[in-house]
Amino acid sequence: MTIRVEIIATGSELLHNKTKNTTTPFLVNQLIGLGYEIKRISTVDDGIEEITGAVCEALRRADLILLTGGLGATPDDVTREAVAEALSMPMEFRSDLWEEIQQYFDKRDLSTTPINMKQAYLPCGAYALHNPLGTAPGILIPYDEDVTIVVLPGPPGETREMFLHEVKPYLIKHYPPPASHKVCTFKICGCGETVVCERIKDVIREARESGIKCSFLSGPDEVQLILELSDPGDDNDNNELLKKLGDQIQTLLGPDLYGVNEETLMGKVGEMLIEKGFTVGVAESCTGGLVASYLTDVPGSSGYVRGGVVAYSSEAKEKVLGVSPDVLKDYGAVSPETAKEMARGVRELMNTSIGLSTTGLAGPQGGEPEIPVGTVYLGLSTSEGEELVRKIYYPKVGRLTLKTIAAKRALDFLRRYLINSSGVD
Amino acid sequence: MTIRVEIIATGSELLHNKTKNTTTPFLVNQLIGLGYEIKRISTVDDGIEEITGAVCEALRRADLILLTGGLGATPDDVTREAVAEALSMPMEFRSDLWEEIQQYFDKRDLSTTPINMKQAYLPCGAYALHNPLGTAPGILIPYDEDVTIVVLPGPPGETREMFLHEVKPYLIKHYPPPASHKVCTFKICGCGETVVCERIKDVIREARESGIKCSFLSGPDEVQLILELSDPGDDNDNNELLKKLGDQIQTLLGPDLYGVNEETLMGKVGEMLIEKGFTVGVAESCTGGLVASYLTDVPGSSGYVRGGVVAYSSEAKEKVLGVSPDVLKDYGAVSPETAKEMARGVRELMNTSIGLSTTGLAGPQGGEPEIPVGTVYLGLSTSEGEELVRKIYYPKVGRLTLKTIAAKRALDFLRRYLINSSGVD
Repeated sequence: MTIRVEIIATGSELLHNKTKNTTTPFLVNQLIGLGYEIKRISTVDDGIEEITGAVCEALRRADLILLTGGLGATPDDVTREAVAEALSMPMEFRSDLWEEIQQYFDKRDLSTTPINMKQAYLPCGAYALHNPLGTAPGILIPYDEDVTIVVLPGPPGETREMFLHEVKPYLIKHYPPPASHKVCTFKICGCGETVVCERIKDVIREARESGIKCSFLSGPDEVQLILELSDPGDDNDNNELLKKLGDQIQTLLGPDLYGVNEETLMGKVGEMLIEKGFTVGVAESCTGGLVASYLTDVPGSSGYVRGGVVAYSSEAKEKVLGVSPDVLKDYGAVSPETAKEMARGVRELMNTSIGLSTTGLAGPQGGEPEIPVGTVYLGLSTSEGEELVRKIYYPKVGRLTLKTIAAKRALDFLRRYLINSSGVD
Repeated sequence: MTIRVEIIATGSELLHNKTKNTTTPFLVNQLIGLGYEIKRISTVDDGIEEITGAVCEALRRADLILLTGGLGATPDDVTREAVAEALSMPMEFRSDLWEEIQQYFDKRDLSTTPINMKQAYLPCGAYALHNPLGTAPGILIPYDEDVTIVVLPGPPGETREMFLHEVKPYLIKHYPPPASHKVCTFKICGCGETVVCERIKDVIREARESGIKCSFLSGPDEVQLILELSDPGDDNDNNELLKKLGDQIQTLLGPDLYGVNEETLMGKVGEMLIEKGFTVGVAESCTGGLVASYLTDVPGSSGYVRGGVVAYSSEAKEKVLGVSPDVLKDYGAVSPETAKEMARGVRELMNTSIGLSTTGLAGPQGGEPEIPVGTVYLGLSTSEGEELVRKIYYPKVGRLTLKTIAAKRALDFLRRYLINSSGVD
C-alpha cells in the first residue's frame, strides 16, 4: 500500500523560502527515502483560515500530513490553533511543557517572557515532540485511525533533529516502508540534459518498459537522472534490474558521471584525493573562496585540504602567489597563463601535490570584447610538473550563479584529472 | 482589488528543491514586490493528471497562475500538455519556434535531436515567451478574460530572465500593482526572535492596531521582521506611518539592526568599507573560504577585498599567516590568541587596513571537553593596532550550518567594528 503524504509549509516557511529554505527539501528527501509518495507540497499564508483550509483539503487525500512552521512564540505564529480548529480539537495548557521551556531558558541564563507561555499549549490529547534545539515542542496527532498529522517547527535545524529522533521512528513503526521501493540518482557534470538523454536513450527506453520512472533534473552546474522503482515484485529481480541499468548508464556516460545517490562532487574529489595520497591547495580569483568552501564542506577534508588563497587583487596574485608581473601585464589577470601561475603558486606556497586555480570575470562590470563577463580559466598544477588549463564561458547567468558554476567546474576539472592519475607510490 | 496568485511548481522543480530551489523564492519576491497576494504555492508530481488537477483547482481561486518546470525536451516533461488539457485547448506545432530552437543549437555548434521538436508545441492561441538562455519557450495564456496562466521553465536562470523581460511588463500593464501596498523588512543579526519581539513590542502593537501585518522570520544566522501594509487609504499617511514605525524600530534595536529590505550583511559591510576608505583581508580556518566568498558576492567588492587565506593546516597558519608556533602549541589552533595572530597575519600579508579571521571546530569530529564542536573564535586586527576577539558557540547545528553562522557572524563582527570606527582621514 502506498502512503500518500502532503507537506504544508506555513507563512514563516514561505518567507524562509525567500532566503534559503532547507526544511522542505530535507523532509522530501527523508519521506522519499521511506518509500512514501509525496502527493503535494503546499505553502500557505500563516492565517488561521488558510492553514485550516489546507489541512481540511489534505485530510481528504493523504494518509500522512506534515506541517512546518508557525510554532514560534510571537503572535504571527498560529499553526497550533489552526490545526486544532481543522480537527475540531480543543487546546490545553501543558504544565510539563512549560517547565521544559523554562529550563531551556534557565540553562542559557535567559529569562522567559510571558509570550513564551503560548508554546506550552497543545491540541487536547496530542503527543508533544521534544525539541532539543529550541523552545517549540512539535505535535503528533493520530487522527481518526486513518490519518496522522505531524506539526514541526520552522527552523531547519529544529525540524531536522525532531524528525530524525521522534517522527521517523514513529513512522517506521506505524507506516512501514514498502520493501520494493528503490530510488537511484545518477549525477553528471560537464554536459547538458539533451546530450545525456540522447546518449543513454536505449537504457531509458528499457527502464520505462520495465515500469521504472525516469526523470531528469537540470541545474546550471549539473544534470541528475533519477530512476524510481515501485514494483512490488520480487526484490532480488528488482535489485538486479536496477544494477544492470546502472552499469549500462555508467559505461555510456564514462567520466561524465561523477557519482550516484548521496555522493557529492566535493565528497567524490575528497575520496579520490585520499585514495591517491594527494593534498590540494586552491588559488581563487573570481570564485572568491567558494572552491575552498565547497572542498571543506566535507567532514574530514582537513586531511587533504592544506589551504587556499583568495587573490582578489593583482598585488595578492603577485605577492602571495608569485604570479609574474610580466604575465599579468602581457596576458592579463583573466588568461590561461595567469591561471597556470596561480595554480603553481598555491601548490608551492601550501606545499601540496596539487594546486587548483580559478580566474575569470564574474561581472556585472568589467567585460571587454575579447574577454566578456562569464569567461573563466581553470588551472591545475601538480608536483610532477603537469600543468593544465581549461576555459569555460557562461554568459548572462549573473554573478552568483557564475561563481557557483565556476567553482563546481573547477572541482570537476580536478576530479577528471584524478581519474587518470596514478597517485602517490 | 487584490490580485490573487498561485504558483504551481512541477516535479522537476520538486527535485530541484532537494538541492537548491531558487526559482520559487525569486518569483515570490517579485510577485510580493508587485503588491499581489500569494495565496498558495504548490509543488506537484510531474504527471499529466497531477498537474491538470492542480491547475483546475487554482482556476477556481486565483487571478494569476504561474507554473514552473516541465518544459524540457525529455519525456518526463509534461507541463505543456497538462496545461492544455486543463484548459481544454488543443496543441499546435509552431514552425517559428522550431526555427529559433534550431538556431540556438547552431550557434553553439550543436545539433538538435528529434526530441527537441517537442519544445516547439504550444496550446493553440497561447503566446510564446522568448527564452534567451535555453531552448524551452515559456507560455502565456490569457484565459477566459478572468485568469492569466503563465508557464515558465524550471532552471532558475531561464525563469529569471523570462520573468523580468517578458512576464513582468505584461503583468504591470494588465494587473497594475496597487499603489498602497508596502512591505518593509528589518534585518537583525546577533540576537534571537523573542528578545527582538520583547524589545519592540510596543511598536508591534501600534503597527497591528494600524492594520499592519507583522511577521517574524528566524534563521540560524539572523532574524527578520516583516511589516506589510495593504491599506488602500491615503498614500502619504501610509508612508508617514511606516516611516515613523521604522524610525522607532531603528532606535530600539540600535546596532543589532543591520539593514532593511534588500540590504544584505555583505553589501552593508561593503558600503561601510568604501565609505571609510578601508580595505580588508580574511584569514579563515573553520569557515574554509566562506567569509571571502560572501564578501565577494557583492558586485564591486574588488574595490575593498584584497584577498584572503584559507589556512586549513597548522603549516599554512604558520608559514602563510605567520602565526607563531608557540601560540599554536600553547593555546591551540582554536583559541583567541590564534584568531588574533591570523587576523594580524592576513592584514600584513594582504597589506590591508583590516584583517578578519575565523578559527573553530566545525565537526563532526575533533571536539574536546574544553573546546567542544561548535566553538568559533573571530579575530579582527587593524592597521591602527587595534585587536579584537569574539567567541561564539553553536553546538549541534551541523557542519554546514556552523560554517554559515560563523561566516555571517564574522561579517557582523566587522560591521559592528565599522560602525564605531572613524575611518581613514
